[in-house]
Amino acid sequence: MRAVTLPSFGGPEVLTVADVPDATAGPGEVLVDIAATAVNRADLLQRQGFYNPPPGASPYPGLECSGTISALGDGVEGWAVGDQVCALLSGGGYAEKVGVPIGQLLPVPAGVSLVDAAALPEVTCTVWSNVFQLAALQPGEQLLVHGGTSGIGTCAIQLAARHGATVTVTVGSAAKAERALELGATRAVLYNDADFVEAGPFDVILDNMGAKYLARNVKALATNGRLVVIGMQGGVTGELDLSQLMAKRAAVHATSLRARPLEEKAAIVGAVLAGVWPAVEAGEVKPVIDRVLALDEVAEAHRVVEESGHIGKVLLTT
Amino acid sequence: MRAVTLPSFGGPEVLTVADVPDATAGPGEVLVDIAATAVNRADLLQRQGFYNPPPGASPYPGLECSGTISALGDGVEGWAVGDQVCALLSGGGYAEKVGVPIGQLLPVPAGVSLVDAAALPEVTCTVWSNVFQLAALQPGEQLLVHGGTSGIGTCAIQLAARHGATVTVTVGSAAKAERALELGATRAVLYNDADFVEAGPFDVILDNMGAKYLARNVKALATNGRLVVIGMQGGVTGELDLSQLMAKRAAVHATSLRARPLEEKAAIVGAVLAGVWPAVEAGEVKPVIDRVLALDEVAEAHRVVEESGHIGKVLLTT
Repeated sequence: MRAVTLPSFGGPEVLTVADVPDATAGPGEVLVDIAATAVNRADLLQRQGFYNPPPGASPYPGLECSGTISALGDGVEGWAVGDQVCALLSGGGYAEKVGVPIGQLLPVPAGVSLVDAAALPEVTCTVWSNVFQLAALQPGEQLLVHGGTSGIGTCAIQLAARHGATVTVTVGSAAKAERALELGATRAVLYNDADFVEAGPFDVILDNMGAKYLARNVKALATNGRLVVIGMQGGVTGELDLSQLMAKRAAVHATSLRARPLEEKAAIVGAVLAGVWPAVEAGEVKPVIDRVLALDEVAEAHRVVEESGHIGKVLLTT
Repeated sequence: MRAVTLPSFGGPEVLTVADVPDATAGPGEVLVDIAATAVNRADLLQRQGFYNPPPGASPYPGLECSGTISALGDGVEGWAVGDQVCALLSGGGYAEKVGVPIGQLLPVPAGVSLVDAAALPEVTCTVWSNVFQLAALQPGEQLLVHGGTSGIGTCAIQLAARHGATVTVTVGSAAKAERALELGATRAVLYNDADFVEAGPFDVILDNMGAKYLARNVKALATNGRLVVIGMQGGVTGELDLSQLMAKRAAVHATSLRARPLEEKAAIVGAVLAGVWPAVEAGEVKPVIDRVLALDEVAEAHRVVEESGHIGKVLLTT
């Protein structure tokens, strides 16, 4: 099969499409013939050598895909060859085939194309597990989403607004602000022009900036507020004012999906199927896709995400 | 009535017993004739001018008491004059009488003397709300308690060990280590001789040191670990390594009881009555009392707590 390999770490130019041995389906897995995958920021880090795959994961990048089941591993029930699916992966999406534990499979939702479904697994699992399960966002609460037009941002806006929360986002341009408001955000703060703290306080903050925003995020929290850090684009180590956190009886969480044990991933995928898929099938939550490129254009896809000019997901078709 | 007043802020010598107007019971409150109160670290901060009472609270120190109901305010049901109680207070315990919202009353547990019951409200409400409700300590998990022979420490050890968790404590002396092990701790780390991080990882850490221990506490957390900061004896602002927190999918919480709204306090007191009182009445969890002094000896009581030589609670009788 063809896959994107990393002969060395570095810029987008190191991404190399090569012929590699076919992926297979182990026990409890299905083999998926991949229709599309999506570029996540973690792939950029992996390409640079800063985020190696966890033990047992595919060496190829790619944390999600859509496609068609072409073979069943031992002990698989409930899925059949020919089923159209999308999946959360621990790696290997940048390829023509991948073996997927059945706990990480989701059916392609009615009304969504096979290719577009590749935009859904990471964002829905990330937003659902962090904003709704961990932070337990309630109707009527205030949510702040940093990076409001990222794939995760566009999904968080739609799910939270539908849930009855008020959503504020930070974005880098007026065009992104407009798109965020169209998707259901109530306010968009242009981070180059204004301080998001002034727009608070917020009951829940979904953060991708890490250290750079830590002090201001804590300042922007409401009483009983929950800050959930899922990215560290602004650095790793920041100052935490515990007296502010205590006065607010607030919490700082940090999480990621990739390194979780299979059973935790399966639990999240199951919760997404129950909590998010009906909204997607009803057309209330849509995948937001910036562009679709071919697997051979993977370097260009990485450049697009690196420059942060995109809105929503960048997909790659095989 | 007599009460401990603060004509000025400063050392223990500013604590002044004076005649003041009698406390009264407002609507939804009872008047308690106080038998005993207890010294909490927050009282030391209040005496120094660093922790003013929240709006509406008594100006006198004292966050808990035991005593006998002597009058009922408007709309009080379920309590009668003559009932022996102990109570969580937002202030006013260092006095002969105090008005208490009924949501903060607990009956004196069978088998505990009226005076000794003053040792229970703060420690049981703090430990239950933080270790069992917020951090949801599970049987089989590892708990680290800093300040293992403080009032809170001695209560946390007993409740957590009874719950089937393994308890490690940090303490400042061999005598304190011995007492912590007697109460049910499995390990006691002498913090002057050893690094508690080596004794980890811990699923839950109950911390009273704040900034000074923040980095090491995060280092000592297990996967899915919960750090709960309830004191800042080691400073307020510390460095937080979000990459460590993320790799562990862990959380930092900070809380306090005093500033919570009445309904939250009542919910905690109700949960303590259901979750802790049966264990106290069965003799499985005992109040640990270092000494009992008279209200006139309040300055001496503050010195004892300030020097940290005590084990368990220091009580004051009126």
